[in-house]
Amino acid sequence: MNCENSNLKSLDEDVLYHLGLSTKTVDFKKHFGDVKFVCTGGSAHRIKDFAHHLAKKAGIHTELPNLASKGGRFVLYKVGGVLCANHGMGTPSLSILLHELFKLLHYAECTDVTFIRIGTSGGLGVQPGTLVITTEALNTEFKPFYELHILGKTVNRPSYMDQTLVEELYSLAKSLPENMPVIKGKTVCANDFYEEQARLDGAFCSFTEQEKMSYLHEAHKLGVRNFEMECTCFAAQCRMAGIRAAVVCVTLVDRLSGDQVNHTPDDYARMQQLPGKLVTLFLQKHNAL
Amino acid sequence: MNCENSNLKSLDEDVLYHLGLSTKTVDFKKHFGDVKFVCTGGSAHRIKDFAHHLAKKAGIHTELPNLASKGGRFVLYKVGGVLCANHGMGTPSLSILLHELFKLLHYAECTDVTFIRIGTSGGLGVQPGTLVITTEALNTEFKPFYELHILGKTVNRPSYMDQTLVEELYSLAKSLPENMPVIKGKTVCANDFYEEQARLDGAFCSFTEQEKMSYLHEAHKLGVRNFEMECTCFAAQCRMAGIRAAVVCVTLVDRLSGDQVNHTPDDYARMQQLPGKLVTLFLQKHNAL
Repeated sequence: MNCENSNLKSLDEDVLYHLGLSTKTVDFKKHFGDVKFVCTGGSAHRIKDFAHHLAKKAGIHTELPNLASKGGRFVLYKVGGVLCANHGMGTPSLSILLHELFKLLHYAECTDVTFIRIGTSGGLGVQPGTLVITTEALNTEFKPFYELHILGKTVNRPSYMDQTLVEELYSLAKSLPENMPVIKGKTVCANDFYEEQARLDGAFCSFTEQEKMSYLHEAHKLGVRNFEMECTCFAAQCRMAGIRAAVVCVTLVDRLSGDQVNHTPDDYARMQQLPGKLVTLFLQKHNAL
Repeated sequence: MNCENSNLKSLDEDVLYHLGLSTKTVDFKKHFGDVKFVCTGGSAHRIKDFAHHLAKKAGIHTELPNLASKGGRFVLYKVGGVLCANHGMGTPSLSILLHELFKLLHYAECTDVTFIRIGTSGGLGVQPGTLVITTEALNTEFKPFYELHILGKTVNRPSYMDQTLVEELYSLAKSLPENMPVIKGKTVCANDFYEEQARLDGAFCSFTEQEKMSYLHEAHKLGVRNFEMECTCFAAQCRMAGIRAAVVCVTLVDRLSGDQVNHTPDDYARMQQLPGKLVTLFLQKHNAL
């Protein structure tokens, strides 16, 4: 893992501010040098549960420390060669996490690292509880780009996914129970949950139900199977860093039937765990735990 | 507080999914009907501390419950007529919180509500530890807009601040100790901490130090005094909802001198509390606790 940024060489100390880790106080190579996989998701609770689930599989039954506790923004756990971190909601929050994790892996001199996002999403024409492995990450204009503004100028970074990794995950999904449907599909990344995802039930709504449905049907026709809020940034920034990346999300609602997410706590807890089940199989296959 | 969205009338139940609150299980009017002020900030820990600080001022010394715990995404505390919520980092995460808080206040039939964001930021030509009261919220092209994409089309919402509220807060700041500098200034909202804020120390950097400084000096010349990641969305969405809004951030670094944020834990804790000190005076003046 090489950071392209030569400015880092001239830093006497590099404080990864939001992770609360610094090159002066942490021996990155010693503590993180064996990392081969990074699993991320929005919610801190879900990532904590996932890390402890991996730990159990690895025969570890003690509480894992949050390695990013000093930063006060993210959780970060390590199980064998796997890092688990939450990224909050939306690309700006994710972008901060990625910059700091990339630098962490750079200082730790890690090689051949794979990033997998395990998330929740709104489905499009698929049964709630379906796992979608993202084949292409699109913005809300259905273009495969992560847009950012550098020194006030628009920059579009390609957000293609690693197709080999998509196929490997899809093929592994055959080992999952039959009642856990897994599909491949395009994913739209929105910068909001309500208006940008064509929901009618936000505090504001400036379009009709007909306009909403026409937008969603256009997406479906293009092969979009779910909406979430991070995939373009995840794909594009990992690609920039020369890192393999995949996005596996469970759908919590079928947006062609409605907008509201409303499950019993038990169903909700079960659904949220599904992406982690597939990714656990993947990590075990690669002897990562 | 009236939500403009008439679709809400036809909902049998409205689940505020990320807050974990529903119109079927919570009597919003009973529990939130007296809310007049909403204070928000990025970090859950900071908002929890702030809410408990307000509680002490109000003579409450018990642990406050997190009213949004079922959602698993945000913290939400109530002290008298004040709600305190964290919004995570970046406009997408903030946007979710605002939609759901606006709906909460709508169902609770609250009137004359004021929102104040108490945040951290990177300063521009000001001493770290300075409080900046935002006079205008700008995007990274220095335009006063919050950009979103609805049904794939770009929408720019004006992000002007309420100048009366700016002046009221600024005037109150005179009661603060002399070693707590407070200024008024424009604030730039970026969608990333590193590249979009012209930092040289991210995992990637595509510009020179000279180009960075030229961008920052241009901002300074326009009256920008700090960079953060939420103000345009905060200003624009509150304005859409007919809500008075203010942004008060402490600066943790002077970006004209460097990029890294590196304070002792004590200094850092002290600085983070500063916006809350000014806002506490404001809330006390309005008998909100």
